[in-house]
Amino acid sequence: MKTWKIYLSGEIHTDWRERIESGAREAELPVHFDAPVTDHDASDDCGAVILGHEQDKFWYDHKGAKVNAIRTRTLIADADIVVVRFGDKYKQWNAAFDAGMAAALGKSLIVQHDPALNHPLKEIDAAALATAETPEQVVNILKYVIRGALNR
Amino acid sequence: MKTWKIYLSGEIHTDWRERIESGAREAELPVHFDAPVTDHDASDDCGAVILGHEQDKFWYDHKGAKVNAIRTRTLIADADIVVVRFGDKYKQWNAAFDAGMAAALGKSLIVQHDPALNHPLKEIDAAALATAETPEQVVNILKYVIRGALNR
Amino acid sequence: MKTWKIYLSGEIHTDWRERIESGAREAELPVHFDAPVTDHDASDDCGAVILGHEQDKFWYDHKGAKVNAIRTRTLIADADIVVVRFGDKYKQWNAAFDAGMAAALGKSLIVQHDPALNHPLKEIDAAALATAETPEQVVNILKYVIRGALNR
Amino acid sequence: MKTWKIYLSGEIHTDWRERIESGAREAELPVHFDAPVTDHDASDDCGAVILGHEQDKFWYDHKGAKVNAIRTRTLIADADIVVVRFGDKYKQWNAAFDAGMAAALGKSLIVQHDPALNHPLKEIDAAALATAETPEQVVNILKYVIRGALNR
Amino acid sequence: MKTWKIYLSGEIHTDWRERIESGAREAELPVHFDAPVTDHDASDDCGAVILGHEQDKFWYDHKGAKVNAIRTRTLIADADIVVVRFGDKYKQWNAAFDAGMAAALGKSLIVQHDPALNHPLKEIDAAALATAETPEQVVNILKYVIRGALNR
Amino acid sequence: MKTWKIYLSGEIHTDWRERIESGAREAELPVHFDAPVTDHDASDDCGAVILGHEQDKFWYDHKGAKVNAIRTRTLIADADIVVVRFGDKYKQWNAAFDAGMAAALGKSLIVQHDPALNHPLKEIDAAALATAETPEQVVNILKYVIRGALNR
Amino acid sequence: MKTWKIYLSGEIHTDWRERIESGAREAELPVHFDAPVTDHDASDDCGAVILGHEQDKFWYDHKGAKVNAIRTRTLIADADIVVVRFGDKYKQWNAAFDAGMAAALGKSLIVQHDPALNHPLKEIDAAALATAETPEQVVNILKYVIRGALNR
Amino acid sequence: MKTWKIYLSGEIHTDWRERIESGAREAELPVHFDAPVTDHDASDDCGAVILGHEQDKFWYDHKGAKVNAIRTRTLIADADIVVVRFGDKYKQWNAAFDAGMAAALGKSLIVQHDPALNHPLKEIDAAALATAETPEQVVNILKYVIRGALNR
Repeated sequence: MKTWKIYLSGEIHTDWRERIESGAREAELPVHFDAPVTDHDASDDCGAVILGHEQDKFWYDHKGAKVNAIRTRTLIADADIVVVRFGDKYKQWNAAFDAGMAAALGKSLIVQHDPALNHPLKEIDAAALATAETPEQVVNILKYVIRGALNR
Repeated sequence: MKTWKIYLSGEIHTDWRERIESGAREAELPVHFDAPVTDHDASDDCGAVILGHEQDKFWYDHKGAKVNAIRTRTLIADADIVVVRFGDKYKQWNAAFDAGMAAALGKSLIVQHDPALNHPLKEIDAAALATAETPEQVVNILKYVIRGALNR
Repeated sequence: MKTWKIYLSGEIHTDWRERIESGAREAELPVHFDAPVTDHDASDDCGAVILGHEQDKFWYDHKGAKVNAIRTRTLIADADIVVVRFGDKYKQWNAAFDAGMAAALGKSLIVQHDPALNHPLKEIDAAALATAETPEQVVNILKYVIRGALNR
Repeated sequence: MKTWKIYLSGEIHTDWRERIESGAREAELPVHFDAPVTDHDASDDCGAVILGHEQDKFWYDHKGAKVNAIRTRTLIADADIVVVRFGDKYKQWNAAFDAGMAAALGKSLIVQHDPALNHPLKEIDAAALATAETPEQVVNILKYVIRGALNR
Repeated sequence: MKTWKIYLSGEIHTDWRERIESGAREAELPVHFDAPVTDHDASDDCGAVILGHEQDKFWYDHKGAKVNAIRTRTLIADADIVVVRFGDKYKQWNAAFDAGMAAALGKSLIVQHDPALNHPLKEIDAAALATAETPEQVVNILKYVIRGALNR
Repeated sequence: MKTWKIYLSGEIHTDWRERIESGAREAELPVHFDAPVTDHDASDDCGAVILGHEQDKFWYDHKGAKVNAIRTRTLIADADIVVVRFGDKYKQWNAAFDAGMAAALGKSLIVQHDPALNHPLKEIDAAALATAETPEQVVNILKYVIRGALNR
Repeated sequence: MKTWKIYLSGEIHTDWRERIESGAREAELPVHFDAPVTDHDASDDCGAVILGHEQDKFWYDHKGAKVNAIRTRTLIADADIVVVRFGDKYKQWNAAFDAGMAAALGKSLIVQHDPALNHPLKEIDAAALATAETPEQVVNILKYVIRGALNR
Repeated sequence: MKTWKIYLSGEIHTDWRERIESGAREAELPVHFDAPVTDHDASDDCGAVILGHEQDKFWYDHKGAKVNAIRTRTLIADADIVVVRFGDKYKQWNAAFDAGMAAALGKSLIVQHDPALNHPLKEIDAAALATAETPEQVVNILKYVIRGALNR
């Protein structure tokens, strides 16, 4: 049986990934979750730490962003479903960028965010096959999509 | 050895999927079958039940159709062979839509329907590699295509 | 300046294509419209007339459907936008098939039909970027999309 | 000779597009510029105005975002170069989404923004072939890329 | 208006290309025809004449076949419709090879040959959208496909 | 470790497939071989036997050729390497057609035939990465390509 | 009639491009030539001059190489034929890189170099449809490929 | 869990592959490494040894290069990450060619070379997601990309 590959992109400061993963585990769904490196400091510093320090902050960031891209692009390209969550803080442009890549690659896109963000996220929601408000709704989508199970 | 992935699209009110699946099982074919969610009510209601009710019937349907699309597009894209059955009732435009997607994606398309529908289905039959009248014929195609076994 | 290529698929018994084309002409939009052969008899008979008669109705239809496909597949593949109209009669499975091809090829899909057909067309509407009720709405979409002109 | 197609995505509240277009005109570059509809109100309201009002703000936005997508996706897919500008206000997630689509489609991506935004934009800058601070730098890139002219 | 690009592959010893081209000219069809180099000796010798003689006949042929491929692959990839004619002499494996490339690239394939060749050409006919017996039938297909004109 | 998928297309009247397969087995190569149905009668009759007799020999063949295409196209698309053998009898246009498909799909193509056929096969050899004279040479290519083992 | 697009990649210190272009002009071939920026200093400095100086030589080069890539990738992707010339000096890794891109994109590749370089260039020659020793041979290939004209 | 497929292209005279492979083994990374045949003599001679001697050195090399391409193109197409190392000797154009193919296929490219080569490799570095100086840095990239582990 197919193992569905789900990439969890976006906000890294709350436990939304854990909530989706534990919900899927409880439901014994045949899924494999991937995500970016969610350790913020490691994600910022990886390029300079591994490949050598950069004085110029732009290139310091640049090296790190590219090393992270090795991971994120590979896993997004592998995914069946890309879930992108937007939180209430930070610019989160990389989340929107991932959503754009996922859409262009024909991935099934699920966006998860507070309704307060509906207006600025309308273009991304328009490219998505589902807009969820909570991680639990994402779990319910996965249950339905993979098992056909609908809890009313 | 290759497990052939077969997507069974279309009519959900008769036992045609079971007949194909049991025929394949008896023949011990290395196949994996997938299908849309065939519980009609669940399929209609999934969007509103999981993501929140909609007053407007159009958006009620829209939400559900998109959630179903997460399943159907992924599995059609995964399939080696897409079988589409047309029954004698209902509009079944989603079956024809799936056939169009399968054809555009270069999938091997098998259409199964009563000869009475030959004329209105001629464009879809023209895109198919086989037009079968019965589920048993589909099983025989699979036996031949996968095993080279031809029962005269 | 870009000439937008619009393919008008579907129902061939009303004047909806003319209404869209004349609306676009009046607005002086830089568009080129294509469509299937809309002479129903020619469309049915082309295979047998050109390539030789067939006794068997299935093959008679088959030959014609394939000759028509030379036109339709080429023009759909060329199009920027595919508009598919569903009328209130006939099976119109070829219209739904065209919509499926257009969606799989990443074309911008506009569906035009009476709201009475909303439920059976929900999967196709879900793949579309717009669902219009009238040909005039399609013209207004083209005006907005191409010129940015919005008549309130 | 080739006319280069340049899509100018992103911020719609300053004159950056005009500055790039007039710079290119002065240099007599063989370029054609496209952009989203930059009339903010029209862009917000187009779906409801053309296709019918929606009570629910989410669907009001949704309809509009999809109508806009007919334009933006077609023109991004047509472009040789996609320039995305980020301003200092608003969420601008659609700009980042366009950048993600452009990157996934293999377009040459130029990002233009104030250095103050370097850190939150590092993933998008990492996918770009140039990060410019001013519209004039974008013009200079176009002059060099198209004509080989480098003003020192 | 679209100029249809038609590639005429296969047999080079009869006047079938001229018959199709003159028929299309008379009908004033908006078509552009391309073909391989039909001067047999030039086609055989081009590699060695341009790039230097080869003692070994295999490499003599190899150099020529590759130089010809620059032309044929480019023009097949450009074509909307690929017509492949099989005559009654020679192996004509390159014609069948071109048909295979055209099919894999999703081109509309028309095969033209004497019915006596139906059995050995059945796989290629099965991939075609039309099997014609005469060049005049090919002209009639083009008239119908491009103009919708059906002469009964 | 990767299992290399090798599709063995072409001539079905000698034991060349067995010779390649047994050579690979002796060398314990991690390979999986696929092939068309090599029972000539089954291959000719499968369409009519499974889907219903046809009076007209063209359609009899057509039905069969399409059912075979379900197998051949799927397995060619799956393959890493396509080996096509040409024997000294029959038209073998389907072998050349398979070679054309393989080339257009970017598969590594190995052609195996007697040097007497070099001239008529020059276009296909020119698209191949190796031209072998014997099945044993094909085995040696596989040993080298997969294991790096070169027996001098 | 088709204008063939030819991209001339590689060595920038001799007049080989002019020789090919003048030969094509004399023969009145319907061709359009493109090339990288061949002013070595401009090519090295463009990034820093346009986008701001870099102290670190690696990033100085990096900025420039990316700006050049906007030109080269676009024009290689546009080309029908990519000609890559290797001279007798310098590393010329960018020429080999362009050849790899061209091959992966399915472009017709012509390599032009002195026979003294045959051995180190064997992998690139093996991916090419022609290996020429002189620019004049490249002109002769173009004459033959485009016009079918073979001067013996 | 995903096994990452890493192709190690380029220089074959030092132990860099072993250093990367042993580093990955120690870290128990879920990776599979592939590489070209690194036995220089076998790589040069494989075509002639398997398929028959060639007097002409160009064709001797050509046959071998094509047999090697069966391996290298298949494995590069399979890879998630392509690492290309440039040493301080030889032309190494095939390494640059592999890098070009990898880039055009959208693979994550890591280049590894001495800083002394920065300038001539700037175009390839510009297409890469990381430029490493040592094999150990490549191992650290893999650890971070696959496990999220960053050793400071």
